[in-house]
Amino acid sequence: MSFRAHLEQLVNQVEGSVASSVMGFDGIAIDTHTVQEPGVDLSAMLVEYGHILSKLKEAAAALEAGTVSEVVINTEKLSTIARLLTPEYFLVLALRPEGNFGKGRYALRIAAPRVKAELE
Amino acid sequence: MSFRAHLEQLVNQVEGSVASSVMGFDGIAIDTHTVQEPGVDLSAMLVEYGHILSKLKEAAAALEAGTVSEVVINTEKLSTIARLLTPEYFLVLALRPEGNFGKGRYALRIAAPRVKAELE
Repeated sequence: MSFRAHLEQLVNQVEGSVASSVMGFDGIAIDTHTVQEPGVDLSAMLVEYGHILSKLKEAAAALEAGTVSEVVINTEKLSTIARLLTPEYFLVLALRPEGNFGKGRYALRIAAPRVKAELE
Repeated sequence: MSFRAHLEQLVNQVEGSVASSVMGFDGIAIDTHTVQEPGVDLSAMLVEYGHILSKLKEAAAALEAGTVSEVVINTEKLSTIARLLTPEYFLVLALRPEGNFGKGRYALRIAAPRVKAELE
């Protein structure tokens, strides 16, 4: 399955999805699938979040809290759920705030090992 | 009700709770209630997370994504759920990874306006 197929499956499964992406911590996306205009500059946001996730990863390692597995950032306009795939890449799903958050977390948990397998 | 009473109520309500805290974005806690040894340096972690949340707040504002309401950071050893109270303070609950995450989110959502009222 291509990255695109995984990303499409993800947004189709979760009500209120806006976009999904396989992103590098360097802010460069391998692929992004956008289904709705989120009302914010999504690509700029993902770059910024990638940067912050990368800081978090370092902090958790320094504090011996173990690997960061999941980070959720909810703002007034957008919910984002990110799951770490490898030390270089993460999978992210953006939802409208009223979207199905629980299903989004679940769908990401299921999709992450499959997308990770494509990276290797 | 004192900050401490709110923090105690929070950890008593949520299975798997490790600690709760009212923290400033400057990394200084108003009050922290710890019920279990989390196996990580919790106070260092909260300072670090506060720093990262503060960056996130700025990024979301710059990207016009609206106010950050909630941030969840899950590592192998600890789940943390943070809710913004004011531009200066946030409320945070730390749980064991197997703790009741959904109830933690719910309990924080209910507690946040009450704790916020004490700040004003």
